[in-house]
Amino acid sequence: MTTAISLVRERAALARAASKRLATLSTGAKNEALNRIAELLETRQEPILEANARDLADGREAGLDPYFLERLTLGPDRLRAIAADTRTVAMLPDPVGEVFDSRTLPNGLVIGRRRVPLGVIAAIYESRPNVTIDIAALALKSGNASLLRGGKEARYSNAALGQVIREALAPTEVPDDAVQVVSDPDRAHVDELLKAHDLIDLIVPRGGAGLIEYVRQNATMPVVAHGDAIVQIYVDEFVDLELAISVVDNAKTRRYSICNAVDTLLVHALIAPAFLDRLAGHWGDKVTLIADARAAALLSKERHPSISVERATEQDWSTEHLALRVGVRVVDSLDEAMAHIDQYGSHHSDAILTENYTRAMRFVDEVDSAAVYVNASTQFTDGAQFGLGAEVGISTQKMHARGPMGLRELTSYKWTIFGKGQVRPL
Amino acid sequence: MTTAISLVRERAALARAASKRLATLSTGAKNEALNRIAELLETRQEPILEANARDLADGREAGLDPYFLERLTLGPDRLRAIAADTRTVAMLPDPVGEVFDSRTLPNGLVIGRRRVPLGVIAAIYESRPNVTIDIAALALKSGNASLLRGGKEARYSNAALGQVIREALAPTEVPDDAVQVVSDPDRAHVDELLKAHDLIDLIVPRGGAGLIEYVRQNATMPVVAHGDAIVQIYVDEFVDLELAISVVDNAKTRRYSICNAVDTLLVHALIAPAFLDRLAGHWGDKVTLIADARAAALLSKERHPSISVERATEQDWSTEHLALRVGVRVVDSLDEAMAHIDQYGSHHSDAILTENYTRAMRFVDEVDSAAVYVNASTQFTDGAQFGLGAEVGISTQKMHARGPMGLRELTSYKWTIFGKGQVRPL
Repeated sequence: MTTAISLVRERAALARAASKRLATLSTGAKNEALNRIAELLETRQEPILEANARDLADGREAGLDPYFLERLTLGPDRLRAIAADTRTVAMLPDPVGEVFDSRTLPNGLVIGRRRVPLGVIAAIYESRPNVTIDIAALALKSGNASLLRGGKEARYSNAALGQVIREALAPTEVPDDAVQVVSDPDRAHVDELLKAHDLIDLIVPRGGAGLIEYVRQNATMPVVAHGDAIVQIYVDEFVDLELAISVVDNAKTRRYSICNAVDTLLVHALIAPAFLDRLAGHWGDKVTLIADARAAALLSKERHPSISVERATEQDWSTEHLALRVGVRVVDSLDEAMAHIDQYGSHHSDAILTENYTRAMRFVDEVDSAAVYVNASTQFTDGAQFGLGAEVGISTQKMHARGPMGLRELTSYKWTIFGKGQVRPL
Repeated sequence: MTTAISLVRERAALARAASKRLATLSTGAKNEALNRIAELLETRQEPILEANARDLADGREAGLDPYFLERLTLGPDRLRAIAADTRTVAMLPDPVGEVFDSRTLPNGLVIGRRRVPLGVIAAIYESRPNVTIDIAALALKSGNASLLRGGKEARYSNAALGQVIREALAPTEVPDDAVQVVSDPDRAHVDELLKAHDLIDLIVPRGGAGLIEYVRQNATMPVVAHGDAIVQIYVDEFVDLELAISVVDNAKTRRYSICNAVDTLLVHALIAPAFLDRLAGHWGDKVTLIADARAAALLSKERHPSISVERATEQDWSTEHLALRVGVRVVDSLDEAMAHIDQYGSHHSDAILTENYTRAMRFVDEVDSAAVYVNASTQFTDGAQFGLGAEVGISTQKMHARGPMGLRELTSYKWTIFGKGQVRPL
């Protein structure tokens, strides 16, 4: 315990000291460091792959499921892809130093807000070791030091990646301490990290609901959570059926294990027979439909013998499926659909599919979610798709940043005031 | 205790329900409500002044100091001034609905960020009853419901103001419940309020360090603190002495009881003899100089018999004076001044006075404060002065908003995505 305390605080203090230097570095210096990291991910693969093999062996021994092991696996191609992502971050515009809301006041003061880094960003995340490089790169580009705490299943991989980053930074202007990887699996590290509000400016938990809740409850610094999400699509009565099938299919089946995959379809009663008929024909047994009574009545086994239907319980409306399963509920109005979204949703991503202008606008005005769609797949909720270049996570809270968080969302600002001796009148 | 719990949660729940309606109201409807509040502050003065007289009588009986009682006092002129401020808020641009970062993506999706209210804003504040109207008005204009908890010394005044607001809102489109004043002095209300993260989106404590620390420690929702501040001015060796005296005088004596008044002067050794000589001549005994050894050596009683000088202790550098007292320390370089500011300051407002371009730019780049000044008085740190129209407080934190918080800083945003059936490619 004592070791854990001193280790994490020591690392956080090193990151804090590095952050002061990092905050004033030029974009060129930061980009050079990012390109060096990318280069070493390609030329120093052996120690990383060896470490990863060790994690995988431990994971197989511990009986981790194959899907989890797959996410944990690094290989030459994956490392090359991570290197390419890092080079992409180097090419993104630097948010630091941007001046906005600048103006000259009537008294001649020239005032503006200048973007500055937050300072030290800590991340606590599960399994995928590529997150280590992702967050280190985004933090570095935005002038922040980072303290990275991955899952214990990836401990050797993360340690090796941390080593490569350190080696990459050594000959650059970026301080070696700017990226701190805490790979020791002792749980006490997490608790110490959550207490260090004097050293850490923001903590980003990425993972399951349990992790996020734990961080929210125990963190003493601001938290921006990248959590699970319950996503709804409302299929209005005035819908282009072909568009509806295409969008719903994409929102569920393109990738079903990501946070922006649809969880519940709310279907207007007047279109439900036609829509569900086509959907059942389109999906067959590919996606299990978890239907309320009215939807179940429309999904007849006679017409679609191969479909997979279950009856929904109250619990299903607040379940994030992360699987080829989707709730289906028949509603009588837009208001009923919006009330459902407000009650059961995560305020993450929600869509209306309609040709009716007024209903589309009401949905956009009234649904209180980070991303509100008309006639498009919810799977677009993503930093790269939204034009942010990359993302450190997707925030469902309202303070600071909402929705995908890119580089700009990892900054704060300072007010700069240039005067000529102005004093404030009484 | 049970009563306190049910009362605050009940009020917060009413505010939450009102916030949903408020979020979709037009600017005109909100302005009408603000103007109604202003009108009633002028036409229904009697019950407010009666309630205020009761608070003042209680305060005198309790032996509150005259300065505190002065801040507590409302009169016809003060109410008219508050009414005028409320009308000013009505005239400010509405931040809600502003769309920014809007663009059309290559796939034809039209994406943008649209400003939306935060929801319910709670404030806990001390003594001055005008804060009740200030925050209610700013919250209302930005589409937020508010839950206002003033100091117990202003309980009757606040209750009367709450009643007037309610009466003002009755005939308008703004729900009556949009502003909730909790004037009952039971301390348990505060604790219940801090727990209600499911009903309150942001809490703004305004007052002394004790209150702010208590809120930070116990709040379960985001906190933006409007706290005390230790403000520094660095007087560089290459300074226009006349400008320096004028700015320093304004920064201390225009108003000494506000957070942006200067607390410590850091004076370059090469200008210190001349600067301190002039300052002592200018102030005489008006301002007590709390001098380090080197400054004290320069402030001779022989030359300036009337000046008031004390020797500084370590504690003085981290003291917010809120009085006609100022720390004076002689430094040998800009770096030493910046190190002092980093160590002892509040990262609120700091200034450099210099004619040297490089030093001015280094100060602005490197000092990590909400407001960084060159050659101007720190007393400008204020929402109205900065062109925000008004302020709900001044934030010294980096997340969400930094420096003066106006209407825009009381909002979040949602991403809106308008499509024509776009789906995300694999």
